[in-house]
Amino acid sequence: MSIRNLDKIFEPHRVAVIGASDAPTSVGYTVLRNLVGSGFRGVVYPVNPKREAVQGIQAYKDIPSLPHAPDLAVICTPAPSVPELVRQCGEAGTMGLVIISAGFREIGAEGRKLEQMVRDEQRKFKGMRILGPNCLGIIVPGIHLNASFAAASPAKGNIGFISQSGALCTSVLDWALDEGIGFSYFVSVGNMLDVSMGDLIDYFGSATETRSIILYIESISEAREFMSAARAFARTKPIVAFKAGRFTESAQAAASHTGAMAGVDAVYEAAFQRAGIERIFQVEDMFDCAELLARQQPPKGDRLAIITNAGGPGVMTTDALIERNGKLANITDDTMKQLNDLLPICWSHGNPVDVLGDAPPDRFAKAVEIVLKDKEVDAVLVILTPQAMTDPTATAQAVGKAAAHAHKPVLAAWMGGRVVAEGMQIFNAAGIPSYNTPEKAVRAFMHLVSYARNLEILHETPKDMPLEFTLDRQRLRGVFDTILTEGEEILSENVSKAFLESYEIPVTKPLAARSADEAVEVSHR
Amino acid sequence: MSIRNLDKIFEPHRVAVIGASDAPTSVGYTVLRNLVGSGFRGVVYPVNPKREAVQGIQAYKDIPSLPHAPDLAVICTPAPSVPELVRQCGEAGTMGLVIISAGFREIGAEGRKLEQMVRDEQRKFKGMRILGPNCLGIIVPGIHLNASFAAASPAKGNIGFISQSGALCTSVLDWALDEGIGFSYFVSVGNMLDVSMGDLIDYFGSATETRSIILYIESISEAREFMSAARAFARTKPIVAFKAGRFTESAQAAASHTGAMAGVDAVYEAAFQRAGIERIFQVEDMFDCAELLARQQPPKGDRLAIITNAGGPGVMTTDALIERNGKLANITDDTMKQLNDLLPICWSHGNPVDVLGDAPPDRFAKAVEIVLKDKEVDAVLVILTPQAMTDPTATAQAVGKAAAHAHKPVLAAWMGGRVVAEGMQIFNAAGIPSYNTPEKAVRAFMHLVSYARNLEILHETPKDMPLEFTLDRQRLRGVFDTILTEGEEILSENVSKAFLESYEIPVTKPLAARSADEAVEVSHR
Repeated sequence: MSIRNLDKIFEPHRVAVIGASDAPTSVGYTVLRNLVGSGFRGVVYPVNPKREAVQGIQAYKDIPSLPHAPDLAVICTPAPSVPELVRQCGEAGTMGLVIISAGFREIGAEGRKLEQMVRDEQRKFKGMRILGPNCLGIIVPGIHLNASFAAASPAKGNIGFISQSGALCTSVLDWALDEGIGFSYFVSVGNMLDVSMGDLIDYFGSATETRSIILYIESISEAREFMSAARAFARTKPIVAFKAGRFTESAQAAASHTGAMAGVDAVYEAAFQRAGIERIFQVEDMFDCAELLARQQPPKGDRLAIITNAGGPGVMTTDALIERNGKLANITDDTMKQLNDLLPICWSHGNPVDVLGDAPPDRFAKAVEIVLKDKEVDAVLVILTPQAMTDPTATAQAVGKAAAHAHKPVLAAWMGGRVVAEGMQIFNAAGIPSYNTPEKAVRAFMHLVSYARNLEILHETPKDMPLEFTLDRQRLRGVFDTILTEGEEILSENVSKAFLESYEIPVTKPLAARSADEAVEVSHR
Repeated sequence: MSIRNLDKIFEPHRVAVIGASDAPTSVGYTVLRNLVGSGFRGVVYPVNPKREAVQGIQAYKDIPSLPHAPDLAVICTPAPSVPELVRQCGEAGTMGLVIISAGFREIGAEGRKLEQMVRDEQRKFKGMRILGPNCLGIIVPGIHLNASFAAASPAKGNIGFISQSGALCTSVLDWALDEGIGFSYFVSVGNMLDVSMGDLIDYFGSATETRSIILYIESISEAREFMSAARAFARTKPIVAFKAGRFTESAQAAASHTGAMAGVDAVYEAAFQRAGIERIFQVEDMFDCAELLARQQPPKGDRLAIITNAGGPGVMTTDALIERNGKLANITDDTMKQLNDLLPICWSHGNPVDVLGDAPPDRFAKAVEIVLKDKEVDAVLVILTPQAMTDPTATAQAVGKAAAHAHKPVLAAWMGGRVVAEGMQIFNAAGIPSYNTPEKAVRAFMHLVSYARNLEILHETPKDMPLEFTLDRQRLRGVFDTILTEGEEILSENVSKAFLESYEIPVTKPLAARSADEAVEVSHR
């Protein structure tokens, strides 16, 4: 739809919790507890018909009794009560709704009916926006707004997180706490009755605090809107997506879960590329990839130079690079000459550049400087193993300085645990992505490469396909209703073609001929 | 060769440090510092011709001056001094040598000559064993013996670690410290002038404290010996190998590093399978895989049942499983019936088994019990996301109990950080491998599957190929010397066949015929 009134949901002054409760195991309890006493500067109204106060806070018996109309109402009551509550919110002038309650589309026909009733009520109030139902809620750490039943509040940060799985949200929050990751917005979208992922991407796009977006996708229904929002955002800031349901078996599992077919994975893959979205395949890469793409300049190509103080890890890194279709840079003769001057005689004389086990910080740093200038090199990965003569911390400082004004990405793999921890912090402060294994560093580099490629595609293709046609849905519905009730699972050639034609996709037209003469005759038509 | 006298190296009573030093940046300093004051119950002799004492310990000017012949001599002096020192050790009756010094084969012709001189000296003393040169040394935590220049000592444990890269050793030690991993033996083999990886596997095989072996391999030269040692060990305990140099590019990097061609990766792959060795492709999987295989029974097949309290992660897990060629188990009708009785009506009715977001510990545990009994199921993966109603700790306890007497592997993915930490500890104590993402759990499961397959292959094939033949090396050398000096890079058909024949491999024999008659005649030969 649009971003209209989304500020009522994400920047409310007055928030009502409908179904606020004193029972610690209830959703209405957790939502209220999360909203009050945690720094939110607006006012929170508990709504509960049976109590004077909830959690010690003055409660109201219903929406009409509230002293002011809330901007946002968070609904936690059982599904059958929701349509009537939506109407009451609308009548009070509340334009932002988060419906946490479950028991809608995801439980079948009965729930679908309820969802339609909610939609019918919503339609009566122009501009009313609904997030959910069947979601965990929203968190906006910047204004200490936690309108969710998550167990914890994440820190303020620059990642916008949008998830179709409420259950995954709880895991993601817990990982984020462990890793010190912060969010600008944290949204569980649920069934997307109204507010869609596309709307949210649009809304986050105008917010400067959001520097990257992470999506957890199960299926996209509003494809066109999603694509145009994603393309607009991705022009300036990265979107990272994890999409479950890649194979037939998993798509089946997804269908039994959400009631929606997950769609052919290749279609998503192509769409992500066209929209400039970087896809990840391991959920653990989520934060890392989002931060990486937001902080690093994309490389011009995939030619990596490796600088290492040990041969074995150089080989290991080359393996990881080639496996992921990256390229070892062919360093130029001029670079070779400069490295010959710098390095001891038994250096590797090629890429990976082995600066040898006794390399002091300065030797590392000079090698980085030399290789960065090579026009055959798109990015540099510096690998350190903490050997007897190695100073991981001072080397990180020297490399950080050497990379400070580079116009190419520099990544670091400081291989170890506590011995390299300080060096990793130095890299972090210097904005250099650092990892404790070379494989992780290569994975990061290849994300940069494919993100850069996607950006290129994004800038090359026209913004929107000029696509206009009038679809005779009525006629088609007739045709397909017949087919479906007759239990045909495979469409005949003719029906398939009729279907394609009604979408104005050109098709060949076979004509039957029973003899050579008839064939000749038919060919003249 | 054999395990003869390896106990002189790994269980010494008297240890000499030749080249012991007071200079904190020298190898001889670190080796001596690691050996004394850290709990080793033998006696350590510093050897230094210029000092009365090193690090406050009475020093000796040379090997003949020592009060007793050491069992083990650790040599840290410059390469050119080593051959003479080996002779002196031999004359003193020292049978165990660790040569840490670098400057041998790895630096070229000059170093190769020195290595030959060392070999010549060694040959004069029957039973003398040499580890190295060009290595980090050895650590035997069980007897507090750290005869290496590593920066730290690892804990005692059940993993035997053997590495061809000294630099990697330092990283591995640091990771191990962070993760609390212990070792029975920690060995950097260096150039393997004498003691080979095969010898070490044989030696560790007879030691009960070693429950698994991790190998970091760059290239194997003594293939036959390696294979038979690995096959013998792998029959009862797992070997996990990381082999660098998988692609042409990386093999080239390896060649410039070690001076040895790394060999075609497919050959290694096949050899590992035949030897029952489980290969890993990410260095970070090293410990995890070794511990997993040592602790878990191998599954009968690759059919995995997934039990989860959230749909999304179930789909994610199915993706990871199918991507790695695993199979979703088809649970039987009987199991379906039992699950129908147990679970709320809207459970997923299939595998993944979604026990739903409100699942109490008991529901999880009963589902595990039911699914474990299904004969179509080879292993069970239990996934938990910490939702509002979820108790990760109590659920881990219940699942642990349900899995206690199972004859199939049970794995757990408790998705989160601090919220699930206690549950992970419970699993750890119960011997159930647990991970914080489903992808890692699936990776572990597939390691179990491929290990089980390799074990089967191992038990099916004959122990040794009955292979006896006398090879006319002298004649062959003549042939090939000519070819090589003539710079032919590709062997002709005839030369190739002659080569194969001399290894008693049957070949077809083409005979030239210039006419039909001649062909007929030739065919009668």
